[in-house]
Amino acid sequence: MPILVVGSVAFDSVKTPFGERDHILGGSATYFSVAASFFTEVRIVAVVGDDFGPKEEAVFRERRVDISDLERVSGQRSFHWSGEYGFDLNVAHTRDTQLNVFADFKPKLSAAACETPYLFLGNIQPDLQVEVRKQVAAKLVAADTMNYWINNTPDALKNMLRHIDVLIINDSEARELAGEANLVRAARRILGLGPRRLIVKRGEYGAAMFTGQSYFATPAYPLEEVFDPTGAGDSFAGGLMGYLAGTNALDDGAMRRAIIYGSVMASFNVEEFGCERMQRLTHDEINARFRELLAYSHFEEAQMPPF
Amino acid sequence: MPILVVGSVAFDSVKTPFGERDHILGGSATYFSVAASFFTEVRIVAVVGDDFGPKEEAVFRERRVDISDLERVSGQRSFHWSGEYGFDLNVAHTRDTQLNVFADFKPKLSAAACETPYLFLGNIQPDLQVEVRKQVAAKLVAADTMNYWINNTPDALKNMLRHIDVLIINDSEARELAGEANLVRAARRILGLGPRRLIVKRGEYGAAMFTGQSYFATPAYPLEEVFDPTGAGDSFAGGLMGYLAGTNALDDGAMRRAIIYGSVMASFNVEEFGCERMQRLTHDEINARFRELLAYSHFEEAQMPPF
Repeated sequence: MPILVVGSVAFDSVKTPFGERDHILGGSATYFSVAASFFTEVRIVAVVGDDFGPKEEAVFRERRVDISDLERVSGQRSFHWSGEYGFDLNVAHTRDTQLNVFADFKPKLSAAACETPYLFLGNIQPDLQVEVRKQVAAKLVAADTMNYWINNTPDALKNMLRHIDVLIINDSEARELAGEANLVRAARRILGLGPRRLIVKRGEYGAAMFTGQSYFATPAYPLEEVFDPTGAGDSFAGGLMGYLAGTNALDDGAMRRAIIYGSVMASFNVEEFGCERMQRLTHDEINARFRELLAYSHFEEAQMPPF
Repeated sequence: MPILVVGSVAFDSVKTPFGERDHILGGSATYFSVAASFFTEVRIVAVVGDDFGPKEEAVFRERRVDISDLERVSGQRSFHWSGEYGFDLNVAHTRDTQLNVFADFKPKLSAAACETPYLFLGNIQPDLQVEVRKQVAAKLVAADTMNYWINNTPDALKNMLRHIDVLIINDSEARELAGEANLVRAARRILGLGPRRLIVKRGEYGAAMFTGQSYFATPAYPLEEVFDPTGAGDSFAGGLMGYLAGTNALDDGAMRRAIIYGSVMASFNVEEFGCERMQRLTHDEINARFRELLAYSHFEEAQMPPF
């Protein structure tokens, strides 16, 4: 089944301890859609400026991502983020953010977009997320958000949470959203705000999933080289939603496998700048890492007799 | 098979956001031995002062821990640690450390102690760890250490690493010991220094095991209430070594199950102050949490066809 993603298509200028890239294609909808495209059809709703040209288009076309709902604003530039990572690659230091076309972004959905059964609301203003959500007759709606919206638009964010099935955020965002340091208690509070599932991204430590009745946690794929963490969260969500939509399965087992595919896609994404690694990724490589994660986390039953 | 542990038997004064206890029984050998005692016979080598009385003895006797190698120094007091935890329970703030009898501790081993097949070298000065290790004809030797020895006695520590099979340390200690921020690369360096296995404790994120040929990682047991993290690492090591010694198995599968038992014992230990929770723990509770961790980390194989 196809997926619709709304989010940003942007240009990023990124510096890490291992190198630097200027004005490379990025944005939540980009990372998400490229990752998800390995599993199913993906359609993007986003906005770009004149600087989005044939070179950028080619990235989506090569992955057969449908960009017919991508709005182009002439006379303006695309969203631009400039940031830096130190040796602690978990923390991005924003140097500059230029919203440009994104400042007045009002997502416009085609009739086809409104019929997409899987919907991912990338990290944009929560009211916009709700506006999109209400137009799409989706069977599964997942969303991301960030600390900025938690702090600056808490009411809009809480309203958004009532309209989604799955919230996919990181560790510190979950604690901040719940106002609770203990993740298990934080998760319970967040589930009380609307979503049926909470998926928590924990960077190099993996991911966890909470529902009212179940818990799942997995370590991350162990990487010796993390080159550029930009887009890790969105490629995680892309692999996750891509697997669910590709198999059209929503049971707890499928959700668990989806988290593993999400971890796999994120692990590839961070190996190189931007989408570079994902642009030459193969299904065999994806499946091989899935099997590795299965082996890495496997252990047998045991029962200790009283001593 | 029996285990010998050398380490501290101490009194701790601990303050957490949830309460306070003064002069409660603690120390690495205490936490380790109480945890391991659920799986096999345990013998302690440590030193205490006059303040170690019948009440403290009873804790060991009730768990059938052999304290006949516990040295008693009259006219002196036991090792005393005083510390505090804030809401970030991962970080202990030491208020005061009084070595007392521990300042001149020279481990004295009985003939029986020297024949113990499983040996755990708790976090003490690395030269003392080596001295003990050389006297014991053990089939498996594991050790802990801490940042203090990494920084202050690096040569003694590196010598110690050549005498052990398994190093069990936490995340930040592994990075510091290797001088390398990436844990996978840090692990490779540490394995190059001597131990055949490195087990990394990651607190609320779980644990990971590295060998030259294999990798294993597990999430932690998800806890809503962490009351006092003191002793978590030693009860982890106690459960781990206890399972290995109790089953006398050293293959990779056994090591993985041992890590799960270690996680289970640590999860109980932190639920209350000191050894309070472990003193009334049952085998059924331990096995139940093992099964829960198995369920929490389980996922099925998958294979995505090219899309």
